[in-house]
Amino acid sequence: MPAPLQTAARAFGFEVFACDGDARTGRLTTAHGEVATPAFMPVGTRAAVKAMAPEELWQLGYRLVLANTYHLALRPGAELIEELGGVGRFMGFDGAVLTDSGGFQAMSLAKLNAIGFDGIRFRSHLDGSEFMLTPERAVEIQERIGSDLMMALDECTPYPAERARAEASLELTARWAERCLGARKRPRRALFGIIQGGVYPDLRKRSAAQITAMSFDGFAAGGLAVGEPKEQMLEMAALSATLLPAERPRYLMGVGTPEDLVAAVGMGYDMFDCVLPTRNARNGSVYTSDGRLSIKQAIHARDPRPLEEGCGCRTCTRLSRAYLRHLYISGEILAARALTEHNLYFYARLMAGMQAAIASRTYREFAAATMGRLGGGSRAEPQ
Amino acid sequence: MPAPLQTAARAFGFEVFACDGDARTGRLTTAHGEVATPAFMPVGTRAAVKAMAPEELWQLGYRLVLANTYHLALRPGAELIEELGGVGRFMGFDGAVLTDSGGFQAMSLAKLNAIGFDGIRFRSHLDGSEFMLTPERAVEIQERIGSDLMMALDECTPYPAERARAEASLELTARWAERCLGARKRPRRALFGIIQGGVYPDLRKRSAAQITAMSFDGFAAGGLAVGEPKEQMLEMAALSATLLPAERPRYLMGVGTPEDLVAAVGMGYDMFDCVLPTRNARNGSVYTSDGRLSIKQAIHARDPRPLEEGCGCRTCTRLSRAYLRHLYISGEILAARALTEHNLYFYARLMAGMQAAIASRTYREFAAATMGRLGGGSRAEPQ
Repeated sequence: MPAPLQTAARAFGFEVFACDGDARTGRLTTAHGEVATPAFMPVGTRAAVKAMAPEELWQLGYRLVLANTYHLALRPGAELIEELGGVGRFMGFDGAVLTDSGGFQAMSLAKLNAIGFDGIRFRSHLDGSEFMLTPERAVEIQERIGSDLMMALDECTPYPAERARAEASLELTARWAERCLGARKRPRRALFGIIQGGVYPDLRKRSAAQITAMSFDGFAAGGLAVGEPKEQMLEMAALSATLLPAERPRYLMGVGTPEDLVAAVGMGYDMFDCVLPTRNARNGSVYTSDGRLSIKQAIHARDPRPLEEGCGCRTCTRLSRAYLRHLYISGEILAARALTEHNLYFYARLMAGMQAAIASRTYREFAAATMGRLGGGSRAEPQ
Repeated sequence: MPAPLQTAARAFGFEVFACDGDARTGRLTTAHGEVATPAFMPVGTRAAVKAMAPEELWQLGYRLVLANTYHLALRPGAELIEELGGVGRFMGFDGAVLTDSGGFQAMSLAKLNAIGFDGIRFRSHLDGSEFMLTPERAVEIQERIGSDLMMALDECTPYPAERARAEASLELTARWAERCLGARKRPRRALFGIIQGGVYPDLRKRSAAQITAMSFDGFAAGGLAVGEPKEQMLEMAALSATLLPAERPRYLMGVGTPEDLVAAVGMGYDMFDCVLPTRNARNGSVYTSDGRLSIKQAIHARDPRPLEEGCGCRTCTRLSRAYLRHLYISGEILAARALTEHNLYFYARLMAGMQAAIASRTYREFAAATMGRLGGGSRAEPQ
């Protein structure tokens, strides 16, 4: 079992305040402040959450955002970010930053890359230059970038993947995990391990056994939400959660919809990231407690109501659906801003609601009520 | 001479508090609040100042923005805006809104339009449908839109224009001006007349004599900054200012650069609009007291300094040139936001500086110092 956290040498810590079933609420302590869990991290791939200003993320209650190692290493470069005081300071964000390792890009940009035993050979999507990402280099880059929560380099198993492919992938991920731990130089920065195993339960177990035996500060379930059916994602996520130690934060990577988050918190996950609230906003798709709505639809053209009645976000307190539709159709930047802010407010409120429900031991009721409303809305206004 | 303003039937008023030479500082009173003059109006063509949120404009000190009659009439339509409470409420802006009349679009979209004695026949740039803008219709639309300061429909003389063309244009503008006044139904909304005359001094005088004999609430010099040499623009602006009555606000349409504004305030103008601060920002061009800088340039790649040392805008208090360049090169929406906010802050501060200098009778010194710095910077860092 991993050693207890919060030792003198480490800035990173994780405490659980309350549990309700498998769901739990607590706090991450990082070199850049505390983060209430369960926590959703907005995605700021290139050190910017699209359409948002850093102080707005803070005002919405976000204390932890995700940035992308691969993209930032290519541009503007880890050295430059280090020279400017680290990624948080670089982007003007007062909270903490988690960086992924580049493993996901090895999969998503697969045509440009070659994976070998030693690491991933990237061909830059910007200029075609070659860039070798080894486990050691992934940690070095993340330390230079000034990440508060670093992720070990993994090979993200694609979907679908043959069993043999998934098996090779998890074994490689385990070797790389060891090398990442060995490469670490700054103990104040947390380093998380990632389990793989595709959609094969026994491989998930083997990967979890390998990775959780190592002294990581937290553990992530990777290789999910990469195209597999929703039921399979939830099944593998549920299994993986039981395989991750309770005293460490559990991070379900790349998930998800509001419904997914409610389900996954019920499984015992503490951390999430997903492009959905921001990307959907830029495509005119908006979250409400009664499901999603598409601001493009003509039905909103003369509607003086806010996106969601009673919503306290800046968008809803000031702008009507009719105006937002006008902005969206006109291609105004303010459309992306206003819809993104609403969606991130919605996600922040959802996470706060889950935290409070767990603390008051009413998570089951909260989850049922939330799921009921969300599902009802989606049916009422199909996308 | 026009009758005194501030009668009981009118919400609109204009007072001059102090003069220094021809420069003056004062206050516009509108149905939606007061506006300190000299005032710069950010351009919100489609009821949104590009990349900005309405409350940010307010926080920057803007109490008056410009929106475009032609664009809004086509989409979302004047009826819809009226139904939703008027353009200010529609766009969530707590201040006042001036609308131009559509005359400028008759010129700028000339291929799509035909100008006749009765009005301008537009072919929609959106869907090709026909749209007839008469003087009466221009006023009706602006009243429906809920404009606080309406502009009479004019024929904006293009540059270059033969004398006969400019003469015909000003005569048509005068006929239309009369018809606009006759069409007015809501006296709480101000209506401004526009003088034309191209770059012909005697035609400017004739146009001014015609238009200022009518009972408009304010007067604008139109048909400038449409492609003529800078010296000619300034010469015609200076002449036009002397032809406009001192007791009414004077509006120099479509102007301009910081240097232009300093010069034009010195001529006695009170109001300005221009796309430069917002459009330039989106192209990476930033105003500082020492001239413009282009954030694209490699020289900024590792520069930890703000755009302008000592600038109090949100961008400068939080974000470095290096980060802003990274955002710009990466195509992040936040680049447009942050640079636009800085430029509008710069313009707001410039106007406030001019107001204070006039009040303290030091405008000449202020103008000389400002021009000296601005010019020096432009030379030091050419665009």
